[in-house]
Amino acid sequence: MSETTGNSTLSTDVSVLGLGAMGSALAAALLDAGRAVTVWNRTAGRSTELVGRGAGAADSVSEAVLASPVIIACLFDHASVEKTLGPAADELRGRTLVNVTTTTPNEARELASWAAQHGIVYLDGAIMAVPSMIGPRAGQIFYSGSRAAYDALLPTLDVWATSEFHGEDAGRASLVDLAMLSGMYQMFTGFFHGAAMVATMGMSAADFAARQAPFLAAMTEELAGYAKVIDGGDYTVAGQQSLEFSDLSHIVRASEEEGVDPAPIAAVQALISRQIEAGYGAEGLPRVVESLRGEG
Amino acid sequence: MSETTGNSTLSTDVSVLGLGAMGSALAAALLDAGRAVTVWNRTAGRSTELVGRGAGAADSVSEAVLASPVIIACLFDHASVEKTLGPAADELRGRTLVNVTTTTPNEARELASWAAQHGIVYLDGAIMAVPSMIGPRAGQIFYSGSRAAYDALLPTLDVWATSEFHGEDAGRASLVDLAMLSGMYQMFTGFFHGAAMVATMGMSAADFAARQAPFLAAMTEELAGYAKVIDGGDYTVAGQQSLEFSDLSHIVRASEEEGVDPAPIAAVQALISRQIEAGYGAEGLPRVVESLRGEG
Ligand SMILES: NC(=O)c1ccc[n+]([C@@H]2O[C@H](COP(=O)([O-])OP(=O)(O)OC[C@H]3O[C@@H](n4cnc5c(N)ncnc54)[C@H](OP(=O)(O)O)[C@@H]3O)[C@@H](O)[C@H]2O)c1
Ligand SMILES: NC(=O)c1ccc[n+]([C@@H]2O[C@H](COP(=O)([O-])OP(=O)(O)OC[C@H]3O[C@@H](n4cnc5c(N)ncnc54)[C@H](OP(=O)(O)O)[C@@H]3O)[C@@H](O)[C@H]2O)c1
Repeated sequence: MSETTGNSTLSTDVSVLGLGAMGSALAAALLDAGRAVTVWNRTAGRSTELVGRGAGAADSVSEAVLASPVIIACLFDHASVEKTLGPAADELRGRTLVNVTTTTPNEARELASWAAQHGIVYLDGAIMAVPSMIGPRAGQIFYSGSRAAYDALLPTLDVWATSEFHGEDAGRASLVDLAMLSGMYQMFTGFFHGAAMVATMGMSAADFAARQAPFLAAMTEELAGYAKVIDGGDYTVAGQQSLEFSDLSHIVRASEEEGVDPAPIAAVQALISRQIEAGYGAEGLPRVVESLRGEG
Repeated sequence: MSETTGNSTLSTDVSVLGLGAMGSALAAALLDAGRAVTVWNRTAGRSTELVGRGAGAADSVSEAVLASPVIIACLFDHASVEKTLGPAADELRGRTLVNVTTTTPNEARELASWAAQHGIVYLDGAIMAVPSMIGPRAGQIFYSGSRAAYDALLPTLDVWATSEFHGEDAGRASLVDLAMLSGMYQMFTGFFHGAAMVATMGMSAADFAARQAPFLAAMTEELAGYAKVIDGGDYTVAGQQSLEFSDLSHIVRASEEEGVDPAPIAAVQALISRQIEAGYGAEGLPRVVESLRGEG
């Protein structure tokens, strides 16, 4: 009977909802680590390989939830998590929900309070890795929410990546993750902008990358010094590059002259100008954080 | 007589015009390397230390120019170079002018053609170093303009930094330099933006830098791969992160929710959106260069 009505008798350690690129990688790593795993995906047919490796396939969200004490949600976005888990709130009661779907901090907080209302233990996760990095702890996953759940699940979470707990406010993992990614995308865009500039003189992007990559890597060593100034709150500390010295008009002008859209570096210039206009030109470059804080 | 009427009989290897932080460092490195050096600065009193180390001090630009076959200009900007050298064009005839003042590529080209009109050999330099790095070849200086001058002066140029020649178009050194700096300032701003985001949850900038610096350094390894795609011109190459996947709305929204100005990351988002709207959402992230090219 259980064979024909779906695996209604499934009893596993962990259930994974969502078998996209990331959910599949998470489920596979759990199987590799010897966990009993139930999987579910909205669209059928994505579980075949995992079932071949020993996973149980649930036919419905409820069935997947009832199969395990720990439920991993790895769906597209916040809305798909709400839509998928909303109707299964009763089945989730008393279980632990680990949501590694990318959300904003406020969306994570919303899910945490929804979970609390329904007696569900909630842990939010933010994945700093691509699917191919899951398993050998090459990536990092930030967590926030239930500290007790994090502590209890750590041996399982460590199967995926290096785990880091950021506090009981469920929004914190997402916030650190998105802040890290903001830096990454801005660095990449800086490279694209520089590559577009030198392309006008016929330099290949490869030639530019060969210079830019080691230069940027070396310049990451400046961040700790900037951080010290920011944390100290005194931007007049001696030995710093001043905002006036960081006037970016040569870069913006060169970009325009070469027919390259200066938008991304002009955005930086605007933040610097705001501080100079406010009378802080002689203070250090990290004062840019003051342009970003609150006044936007 | 020469003692009281200025050093009108100076005869040295190199003359340095401009004794700001950088010009002083360049002159000092030349003295350390055993070159005979004449120095000049608009405002008196900045040459005292260099004179103590053996430099000759010229009382006028003309005198400084006449003292040496090679003239280094390290002034504030393009306008100050024009103002300082314009009246000395006749004295400069037949000599080599190495201008390491920061300019745009077009300003360098303008100076090169002015120099050509007056029979002056012109080499433009762009310094990728701070003054304290001058001397032990820790920095880089890019050059463009007269190849013959570069080749002849290389033993002297190498006294300052690692030298790199970028071609006879005098604007190229500046273009590569400004493209490199564009990447650096965008990376720094990405860090400031991320630091402002996590500050709202009480994380120190130091704690954030401790995570962000090694992450960004590791991510510089992606640049070579992006460059390959850009140079290949085919943004559909498999295995790339797509533009749609690089949708930055979570970051922008989180920044807004936490009261941090999303401007610098919103500028990146706009470049991505432009490509998605043009129908290229499934293609790779490096297609951002197409947003930057020409259409700005
Ligand atoms: N891939 C990465 O490198 C990476 C890195 C860090 C974080 N993440 C995050 O991990 C999550 C999953 O990413 P992914 O790479 O696995 O994405 P994906 O390959 O696009 O898979 C998306 C998954 O979400 C499901 N889904 C979408 N809308 C749904 C809905 N309304 N109801 C139920 N299920 C729905 C899809 O089911 P169907 O098969 O039925 O469409 C599929 O299982 C995302 O939040 C992503 O930001 C991914
Ligand atoms: N410092 C760095 O880290 C660095 C790095 C790379 C490139 N650079 C470039 O090197 C150049 C010099 O920088 P710096 O750090 O030495 O600047 P600085 O310390 O501010 O010195 C500026 C120099 O320019 C002179 N000057 C300004 N306006 C002038 C005018 N109208 N006519 C004649 N002389 C004038 C000043 O003379 P007075 O003493 O009379 O004012 C002084 O000698 C700049 O183009 C800068 O972008 C500097």
